[in-house]
Amino acid sequence: MPANIFSYQQLFDFTKTIFEKIGCSEEHARTAAGSLLSADLRGIDSHGVARLTGYVRLWEVKRVNATPAIKVIHETASTAVVDGDSGLGLVIAPFAMQVAIEKAKQVGTGWVSVQNSNHFGIAAHHAMLALEHDMIGMAMTNASPLVVPTFSIDKMLGTNPVCVAAPAGKEPPFVADFSTTTAANGKLEILQRKNLQTPDGWVQDAEGHPSNDAHVLKNGGALLPLGGDREHGSHKGYALGAIVDIFSGLLSGANYAPWVPPFPAYVPMPALQPGKGIGHFLGAMRIDAFRHADEFKKSMDHWIHGFRSCKTIPGEEKVLVPGDPEREMEAQRISNGIPLMEAVSKDLEQLGTRFGISLS
Amino acid sequence: MPANIFSYQQLFDFTKTIFEKIGCSEEHARTAAGSLLSADLRGIDSHGVARLTGYVRLWEVKRVNATPAIKVIHETASTAVVDGDSGLGLVIAPFAMQVAIEKAKQVGTGWVSVQNSNHFGIAAHHAMLALEHDMIGMAMTNASPLVVPTFSIDKMLGTNPVCVAAPAGKEPPFVADFSTTTAANGKLEILQRKNLQTPDGWVQDAEGHPSNDAHVLKNGGALLPLGGDREHGSHKGYALGAIVDIFSGLLSGANYAPWVPPFPAYVPMPALQPGKGIGHFLGAMRIDAFRHADEFKKSMDHWIHGFRSCKTIPGEEKVLVPGDPEREMEAQRISNGIPLMEAVSKDLEQLGTRFGISLS
Repeated sequence: MPANIFSYQQLFDFTKTIFEKIGCSEEHARTAAGSLLSADLRGIDSHGVARLTGYVRLWEVKRVNATPAIKVIHETASTAVVDGDSGLGLVIAPFAMQVAIEKAKQVGTGWVSVQNSNHFGIAAHHAMLALEHDMIGMAMTNASPLVVPTFSIDKMLGTNPVCVAAPAGKEPPFVADFSTTTAANGKLEILQRKNLQTPDGWVQDAEGHPSNDAHVLKNGGALLPLGGDREHGSHKGYALGAIVDIFSGLLSGANYAPWVPPFPAYVPMPALQPGKGIGHFLGAMRIDAFRHADEFKKSMDHWIHGFRSCKTIPGEEKVLVPGDPEREMEAQRISNGIPLMEAVSKDLEQLGTRFGISLS
Repeated sequence: MPANIFSYQQLFDFTKTIFEKIGCSEEHARTAAGSLLSADLRGIDSHGVARLTGYVRLWEVKRVNATPAIKVIHETASTAVVDGDSGLGLVIAPFAMQVAIEKAKQVGTGWVSVQNSNHFGIAAHHAMLALEHDMIGMAMTNASPLVVPTFSIDKMLGTNPVCVAAPAGKEPPFVADFSTTTAANGKLEILQRKNLQTPDGWVQDAEGHPSNDAHVLKNGGALLPLGGDREHGSHKGYALGAIVDIFSGLLSGANYAPWVPPFPAYVPMPALQPGKGIGHFLGAMRIDAFRHADEFKKSMDHWIHGFRSCKTIPGEEKVLVPGDPEREMEAQRISNGIPLMEAVSKDLEQLGTRFGISLS
């Protein structure tokens, strides 16, 4: 393979070993590597191995506990709160999803709010765990404040992503995974590297004026909620981000709003934190708790086929169903390998040197 | 009161009597009037008594059954499917929400998907029924196709609104109720009456070109998903609308996508309908199934206070919490009455004449 292209197995083994080196059990390291690498497979490069060093740094400053005692601290037949014991969100979220799935098997649905966690990678990985059980899966998480509510200068919410995954029959599943901002931070980073401006409605500057500067977050600027401004519905994107925060942070007893801990280990923790760590919310709904699963899946096939058959606007080739681009990317990267930017592969090599393992 | 201002009680009594005149039971008429009038109180004028004649017309063409046998046709401990028997959504949705609330009392949460219904008014009315039980309430509905998926010319989704209502302590509840489009149809109607153009990102024309024509829907145009276009995140608004359709239409066995029945009685029903009527999805989560309700509400107060205290961008007075504008409108209209446009009050007078009752 060319220099900066790696096979899934190569990156998985490397990542798993790094997690073991910082003290994770073999099982936790395997789960964490699976969560992290799912982002690289699906083309969400900002959330994959590019962040591995970041997780290690959080462990160094004791914000990540490599040997957490993850446990249910409160529950009913259809709900639970999980305390992640400051572990990796990459491990805690699949644990919580498993709790949700077991509850759904018993009483139709399961809903788990998580406190005391860290970044969980991509929401889709966790939501999709429900699919093989013929369940609809949901996953969301709050995150450190980069986003302004409509009319605000103060950053109060994270990009707070939501994923809903629903099984189909002959068609692949519906998987919608999106941040509640016009554009996620990863999109900004791409523009920064290319020295390009952002479209309108993505960011504002430190004084609250509309901006097109892709670097504006470094100067006190902010991401805008989906919609951009009030006239284009940003109050709806703001409301969505707020709902994610309430379900993930306030229902669980995690931190919320501007008090959610930052991912970079060098950024100081917010003062006077009202809760514990980062919060997630996971849900599983058994299809046959509503309707015969085969009937539902036949309807999903019909639905998906209808959307794929739409006439397109001038210049566009086809109408996509949520999950299509990521699934196509995954197929391609399983066959052809995962390309890493040079900065990322160098970073991983350094990490390998430090822990005495080889990337290639 | 001035000519076109009516008290809540006046409009409630009138609406309830009309529903009784078409054959609803006293109880159903009361519930339906309460659902419908909640829109007028909260300032969502497009969804209130302005639609009363529309509901009567649906009854005339036998699309609304005034004496439905609304029933649970499938259930588990935390879920149910309700068959609305073609009744008024205004009655069916509160019934389904009650089922969700009872299940939440037993097992922590309750989730009800509804088939064979009609338009349910505003989502907030139903979601808010959970609040007095110290529960988070959710309500959503699919609707007839006015909205294009990203890149599509074909209209495949309704404005598919979502509401989440969460109780606070000393602060009023958080109530986010929003369509999954950049702007709902009611906003377009306001511009049509004033002969104004729409902002960018609201609509496209019949060929799929961006448009600013507020009348464009009459000429084959479409509403755009929240975000407007791909560059501004319309794939996220599209995904949200799709999720509402899956939960409301496909989980219940109602119609979905372009097959959802239209509200105007003169618009023909879609051919080859795959399900029954319109679909809704209602949910209730008991706060103390996760965390002590008083602790949660204290956190909500803290959260709300934080958002209300944000510094604002130039030219804006304050940052709002979802539900603020509607609650302020409700207080004002309870005191000062509900103003109706002349076209609406004339329409109601004609309806009154026909059924032998007086509006004023």
